[in-house]
Amino acid sequence: MSELLQNSQNGHLPASARVPAIARPFVSERAMKTLDLVEKFVEEECIPADAVFASQIGETTEQRFTSHPPIMEELKAKAKKLGLWNMFLPKNHFKEGAGFSNLEYGLMAEYLGKSRTASEATNCAAPDTGNMEVLAKYGNEAQKRKWLDPLLNGEIRSAFLMTEPQVASSDATNIEMKIERNGSDYVLNGSKWWSSGSGDPRCKIYLVLGKTDPKNQDKYKQQSVILVPHDAPGITIHRMLSVFGYDDAPHGHGHISFNNVRVPASNMVLGEGRGFEIIQGRLGPGRIHHAMRSVGAAEKALEWFLARINDPKKTPFGEQLHKHGIMIERVAHSRIEIDAARLAVLNAAIKIDESNAKGALKEIAEVKVLVPAMNLTVIDRAIQAYGGAGVCQDTPLAYMYALGRTMRIVDGPDEVHLLQLGKNENKRGPAHKARIEAQQKKTEELLAKHGMKKADTLQLNRVNGKVSKL
Amino acid sequence: MSELLQNSQNGHLPASARVPAIARPFVSERAMKTLDLVEKFVEEECIPADAVFASQIGETTEQRFTSHPPIMEELKAKAKKLGLWNMFLPKNHFKEGAGFSNLEYGLMAEYLGKSRTASEATNCAAPDTGNMEVLAKYGNEAQKRKWLDPLLNGEIRSAFLMTEPQVASSDATNIEMKIERNGSDYVLNGSKWWSSGSGDPRCKIYLVLGKTDPKNQDKYKQQSVILVPHDAPGITIHRMLSVFGYDDAPHGHGHISFNNVRVPASNMVLGEGRGFEIIQGRLGPGRIHHAMRSVGAAEKALEWFLARINDPKKTPFGEQLHKHGIMIERVAHSRIEIDAARLAVLNAAIKIDESNAKGALKEIAEVKVLVPAMNLTVIDRAIQAYGGAGVCQDTPLAYMYALGRTMRIVDGPDEVHLLQLGKNENKRGPAHKARIEAQQKKTEELLAKHGMKKADTLQLNRVNGKVSKL
Amino acid sequence: MSELLQNSQNGHLPASARVPAIARPFVSERAMKTLDLVEKFVEEECIPADAVFASQIGETTEQRFTSHPPIMEELKAKAKKLGLWNMFLPKNHFKEGAGFSNLEYGLMAEYLGKSRTASEATNCAAPDTGNMEVLAKYGNEAQKRKWLDPLLNGEIRSAFLMTEPQVASSDATNIEMKIERNGSDYVLNGSKWWSSGSGDPRCKIYLVLGKTDPKNQDKYKQQSVILVPHDAPGITIHRMLSVFGYDDAPHGHGHISFNNVRVPASNMVLGEGRGFEIIQGRLGPGRIHHAMRSVGAAEKALEWFLARINDPKKTPFGEQLHKHGIMIERVAHSRIEIDAARLAVLNAAIKIDESNAKGALKEIAEVKVLVPAMNLTVIDRAIQAYGGAGVCQDTPLAYMYALGRTMRIVDGPDEVHLLQLGKNENKRGPAHKARIEAQQKKTEELLAKHGMKKADTLQLNRVNGKVSKL
Amino acid sequence: MSELLQNSQNGHLPASARVPAIARPFVSERAMKTLDLVEKFVEEECIPADAVFASQIGETTEQRFTSHPPIMEELKAKAKKLGLWNMFLPKNHFKEGAGFSNLEYGLMAEYLGKSRTASEATNCAAPDTGNMEVLAKYGNEAQKRKWLDPLLNGEIRSAFLMTEPQVASSDATNIEMKIERNGSDYVLNGSKWWSSGSGDPRCKIYLVLGKTDPKNQDKYKQQSVILVPHDAPGITIHRMLSVFGYDDAPHGHGHISFNNVRVPASNMVLGEGRGFEIIQGRLGPGRIHHAMRSVGAAEKALEWFLARINDPKKTPFGEQLHKHGIMIERVAHSRIEIDAARLAVLNAAIKIDESNAKGALKEIAEVKVLVPAMNLTVIDRAIQAYGGAGVCQDTPLAYMYALGRTMRIVDGPDEVHLLQLGKNENKRGPAHKARIEAQQKKTEELLAKHGMKKADTLQLNRVNGKVSKL
Repeated sequence: MSELLQNSQNGHLPASARVPAIARPFVSERAMKTLDLVEKFVEEECIPADAVFASQIGETTEQRFTSHPPIMEELKAKAKKLGLWNMFLPKNHFKEGAGFSNLEYGLMAEYLGKSRTASEATNCAAPDTGNMEVLAKYGNEAQKRKWLDPLLNGEIRSAFLMTEPQVASSDATNIEMKIERNGSDYVLNGSKWWSSGSGDPRCKIYLVLGKTDPKNQDKYKQQSVILVPHDAPGITIHRMLSVFGYDDAPHGHGHISFNNVRVPASNMVLGEGRGFEIIQGRLGPGRIHHAMRSVGAAEKALEWFLARINDPKKTPFGEQLHKHGIMIERVAHSRIEIDAARLAVLNAAIKIDESNAKGALKEIAEVKVLVPAMNLTVIDRAIQAYGGAGVCQDTPLAYMYALGRTMRIVDGPDEVHLLQLGKNENKRGPAHKARIEAQQKKTEELLAKHGMKKADTLQLNRVNGKVSKL
Repeated sequence: MSELLQNSQNGHLPASARVPAIARPFVSERAMKTLDLVEKFVEEECIPADAVFASQIGETTEQRFTSHPPIMEELKAKAKKLGLWNMFLPKNHFKEGAGFSNLEYGLMAEYLGKSRTASEATNCAAPDTGNMEVLAKYGNEAQKRKWLDPLLNGEIRSAFLMTEPQVASSDATNIEMKIERNGSDYVLNGSKWWSSGSGDPRCKIYLVLGKTDPKNQDKYKQQSVILVPHDAPGITIHRMLSVFGYDDAPHGHGHISFNNVRVPASNMVLGEGRGFEIIQGRLGPGRIHHAMRSVGAAEKALEWFLARINDPKKTPFGEQLHKHGIMIERVAHSRIEIDAARLAVLNAAIKIDESNAKGALKEIAEVKVLVPAMNLTVIDRAIQAYGGAGVCQDTPLAYMYALGRTMRIVDGPDEVHLLQLGKNENKRGPAHKARIEAQQKKTEELLAKHGMKKADTLQLNRVNGKVSKL
Repeated sequence: MSELLQNSQNGHLPASARVPAIARPFVSERAMKTLDLVEKFVEEECIPADAVFASQIGETTEQRFTSHPPIMEELKAKAKKLGLWNMFLPKNHFKEGAGFSNLEYGLMAEYLGKSRTASEATNCAAPDTGNMEVLAKYGNEAQKRKWLDPLLNGEIRSAFLMTEPQVASSDATNIEMKIERNGSDYVLNGSKWWSSGSGDPRCKIYLVLGKTDPKNQDKYKQQSVILVPHDAPGITIHRMLSVFGYDDAPHGHGHISFNNVRVPASNMVLGEGRGFEIIQGRLGPGRIHHAMRSVGAAEKALEWFLARINDPKKTPFGEQLHKHGIMIERVAHSRIEIDAARLAVLNAAIKIDESNAKGALKEIAEVKVLVPAMNLTVIDRAIQAYGGAGVCQDTPLAYMYALGRTMRIVDGPDEVHLLQLGKNENKRGPAHKARIEAQQKKTEELLAKHGMKKADTLQLNRVNGKVSKL
Repeated sequence: MSELLQNSQNGHLPASARVPAIARPFVSERAMKTLDLVEKFVEEECIPADAVFASQIGETTEQRFTSHPPIMEELKAKAKKLGLWNMFLPKNHFKEGAGFSNLEYGLMAEYLGKSRTASEATNCAAPDTGNMEVLAKYGNEAQKRKWLDPLLNGEIRSAFLMTEPQVASSDATNIEMKIERNGSDYVLNGSKWWSSGSGDPRCKIYLVLGKTDPKNQDKYKQQSVILVPHDAPGITIHRMLSVFGYDDAPHGHGHISFNNVRVPASNMVLGEGRGFEIIQGRLGPGRIHHAMRSVGAAEKALEWFLARINDPKKTPFGEQLHKHGIMIERVAHSRIEIDAARLAVLNAAIKIDESNAKGALKEIAEVKVLVPAMNLTVIDRAIQAYGGAGVCQDTPLAYMYALGRTMRIVDGPDEVHLLQLGKNENKRGPAHKARIEAQQKKTEELLAKHGMKKADTLQLNRVNGKVSKL
């Protein structure tokens, strides 16, 4: 282990030694080594750089979204040198990546989730990850060379423009953005928001979901995904949305309008009407990435919590916080909840590896609901232990909470996933009912065979004030 | 699959097909087959027999604890014939068992947990399981032949007498039962309660924890475990404790006094002063068994829940319950919580298989707290969906709740496990604190290197009403 | 204060001194004095008698529902002598009662809720209370003399038969019991269950809800309430329903069938088709009574909790439980939750006093959901502090939990009340939307007036790779 | 009612008509009228001005804390004209205020809590309110004229400097700020943070808590409160603390250092060593104000929630959100929780009015814990219903959440209040134990008198394999 980890932690177990027993058969030797390297890189390079990154962003809104902190490029250079690059691209689908499974990358993503800069530093940051998957899987050669290559090299960034301000766009059939064929071009008109990443001046390419055929009777054939350069005339970024009070600069979450924005027809991805198919394939692994980063965030919150309750200067009622039983109880609950959530994510990742996102729908939905709630609970406990320091800039906790809170919303709110999961589970209802009734019938037969009545039977009547047992 | 399952469930997946992806590498082909057989046996034989069992118990307290429902012996004969016998004895420690790992048996125990009769029918019922482990591991030849053999054959039953009414006996150092050497005998005096299983007339042997050396300076050497036949003179069963309103007859939870009860010195297990060691080894796997049965109970509750919301006669506000969003949401939450809890138990079982109970302390403690709480939550939702039927004898739910509630208490209450888990986790606190401080120091160095201040710095003073920025 | 209270409690404040400040203007001097008398009677007479009552009930099911513990009559005699009788009948509606308001009786009901025998001992037990209200309000002279008088005197008991096993009868439009006119009689056919009180041999009269006009287009005019003597030929009590494992003998919850049961037409209450009106008026105050008894149960649970954590013999980890922070935290949460819930019930009681049950629909529904959940939470904490003693017969806690659990179901499950409350609240939605939009419009006008844009506005475009701020 | 309220709300009930029934006897006719005026002012003037206020603050940190939005002065002028000024000063203690009780002002504070600008606009904003109370109650004539008068007139603002970054200063005995006598002056050295309001350039006066006698054996006599002008040499504002990403400009939360700051001895409030006494008296009503504003915030969140689920454009799965049962359930829970919490606050306010803050310690502590938790729960539900709009600047919800989260920390974290409340409640423990034991003894006497044993008694022994009942 590294000096920083060695010096500070007696008996520190490296990341590889902390992989849950049940997950180990799925992790190669090489992935174990890379995992330890990721931990070291995050703890020693990225976390110390986080505050530098924040300080290198400007002060006015305009400054914040027109520049890019140079420390990030330093980190990227280091990561590349260490071979920590593009680990997210799963080996069974893409040759361009680092050659890991979703499970293996999931384990790494937990550590990336502990730092604000680590995912981007290793070229594993959303929404580029999903966009690179789309281009690698569905893009044609020209599209790949023009956009995928610089993305894979970390030279540019990208955004995925799906959400719209006026409709419940988590249901893609509600999308209103128009993509109309005009000669050899397509022309786009409409509005998008929560266009995450669009604040970054290096974000050069938008993958835009819109409707090319809004009247198609098959409402899953109306949508298309098209590539739009960020500097196409007619695009206006109106404003940046904040998350709680944070603007996430320079990344940012843009509210963008398209006014007769024109792109060549060759920018269409996969073909007209294939948009729904593309977004379906895009979401599964991304949810695992988010979830594992959230597990990492929760671990980090617990570490900060533990650091606080061992601060010898904080002694309410004359005793350090770790002497207070309610703090220890909260630590224990956090440990239990984090560990159970991690197993759920790893199981989902394996399920994706074994089949694909579609075969792992149940597992992914479970994780999508379970993990963000767990993460918020754990962070909130840590905030409370810190008091004022917990809500301000002196700890990473408040920002982590804000970011964590969005995880209950992005890629569909909890309620959508709960509803789908519940409805699917409900399909088993009639069969359960039939089986229970068959079992009850068999009980009656058994009782009859033994010449018995059920124990709860008591037949009384009280005619004329007298009781008679029937 | 069996007829009953086939007939009633369209697309029913057998138990082996529902083993979580992450656990599969740990399950042998033979265990998979046995697992399906267990499911079939439980669903087709045991569950229909549960109500017969209840009806065969007598009405008065005396009757209920002096007889034994004959249906149980029928089930045991069937189970033996199917080879479903003693699956709980882990293969890496005992040759007497069915040759499965803790993980493999854990998967089976989930199904046993769906029926009141299934665990005993397969000779996998507590407290016999733990007692057989003790005798197999620590008993001498004579003790094994006299007590272990009939237990392994399901001819007799047993009890483990640890808990005492007057002290906080979940901490074994508080035990007050006296075991005093007198010539070639030991003489016991004291009281025990929650002596589970002591109500059954076939319960022939008590494993009693008491103190042979109460003044030993090492407070973990004071205790011994000794074998006491149930009919030794001086033993009085005072009463049977109820669990909520249930008496668990004929098993029962006895309150028992020992008045100069005399047994031969050869009944001592392992040797004087080894009692603490014995109970430590006894608890780990037993907690996994309880936990997996609780997972099964939760699954059963969810199945009943689903059956209810698909009952065409129950249509509050004009719609079946499964059309009500809050019901579907509760189904989904239940699914998520059960699946995460199962993974935690399986991971703990693997950890025990790989090391032993001591090496899996953290994982076992996590499961001990997590699973019962989950189980109660899921059962309670089902009760609510059934209304009056949910709290009475027409569903198994109220009894399952009562039993499930004790799981937060037996083998040490939640609070004990949370405290130990939390304290252990807290040991990492100072190291986390040191690492965070080292990272902050590195941030300062990076900022200095770049000639910057932290972004949150704003130095103002307002001398003479004027602001100057420092 | 009484000796028992005086001797045992340093600085014990009498019940009257603990009335919340906000409720005092509504409590007469006389009610304050009666309140203290109720407390004394409950603590000194009823609670000690509770276990005697339980011991006087027989052992077999038949015995338990054909006899009546004599200690109850002793208590009733004492209560009458003290003037603690029929306090539940609100003074503004009935001259027959003790002359208190719903608020005043509510305060007393809290103390009655601490004992299993106290409500009946003071003739304030459900379902007689509601039945007496019905007879007093809607009965004709003959009905009053025949049934109300002996009920008011505590000579007989009664049951209200509404719930049916086959339908979602919490919605009264689903009721299936037939009441058909035949000459000068009515003939009843159908089944009822959860007929609480029907187990008691002194229960002489059933108020039965059924349909006299099942085809009436107004589905709230189909129902009628009719008086049926318990010994009318054709009535069979099939069995008694248990609540968790408790049978609530001799009171009991009967499952009863009516087979051509014939009663004189003069037994109709109020008139054919008035059934819905009767049950509507019956439920409001009854819910307040239940709620205040639940508040009392929660207070009692907290008292037992406090007694436990001050037991010098219970010292896990070497310290009494009250030295453990998590116990103290749970005490505090319990105190907070009980006190808030009590205020909600008192406010609802005042609302009923000021208008009537209909005018207090919102307040009653709030209490119906809030209080049982609070009660269960508080009892559960106490159970956990007691461990094994908490779930068995050595404390009143497990029984209180079982009883408390039914409160989330009786008189309509939580979900029904939440739905009605939520829907009613939702009616304000469009108005809120309109107001918010009007406010936003006014904001725009103000900004325009000051020549400003909103702070979040940032207009950028990036044509040709250059940024221009619009 | 006003036009805006009239136009937009069918059947809108004015604030006075929504005062809970139980609170009405405590509210004067005049307070009722003022209450309606407050509602009108908040809804029509303040809420539309909130976004203007936000837009008038500058962009850079320096700008944001050196200017003051002019719209606030417009609002203040309007409020004064309407007579809505200084309502917080309770009539039974101060002649300077508007003549309302704590309960009456509490009702008004709920409405003030719906707008970011309303409290300041009516000169009822913290920390000025508490500071004015201190000066009015403990200040000498000179201090009152110099600082109280301009504060009462809304000409200047103030801060209360208590919290320190290095110690657990919620326990005032840990305070480290030094206040040393030096000739006719006092000299201050030390650091403060969370100095709320210190960012505002109009904040002219600091009330500073420090130690004048750190070695005093009575640790509650070590502290003093002294007045320090904001422009005293030696004061440096280092930075402004953020709350989640919000800086609360221009108010702000300063981190301030004192380096040999010198003030005349006449600036001491009340006298050396009286600091603890001053802060004790200061906190009670302030907690009620915070709590009632939080109740108002929760109401506002619920109104926004209701507006959202009635938005005809938001139709996930083809139906408006109010058609989804889980949304309606959350509305209902919110209504229940808000209403119960409000009653708890009103009861505490009455308790303060009847005695004082010391006599209402229990009630205040209950409210301090209950209300912020309720508020966060309700806001979080609304956020979830809005999705992305809920976490960004397009709704007031995220900011309300951030502010609400601090309420679990300011004036002592939840845990401090829970511990004190719990410990106080625990004092009753031994008395409860004694009473329960006396009741159990009386039960034994009753059983003996009736010649009975307890029902749970069953005496069996099994000598020689035979059962004999004792």
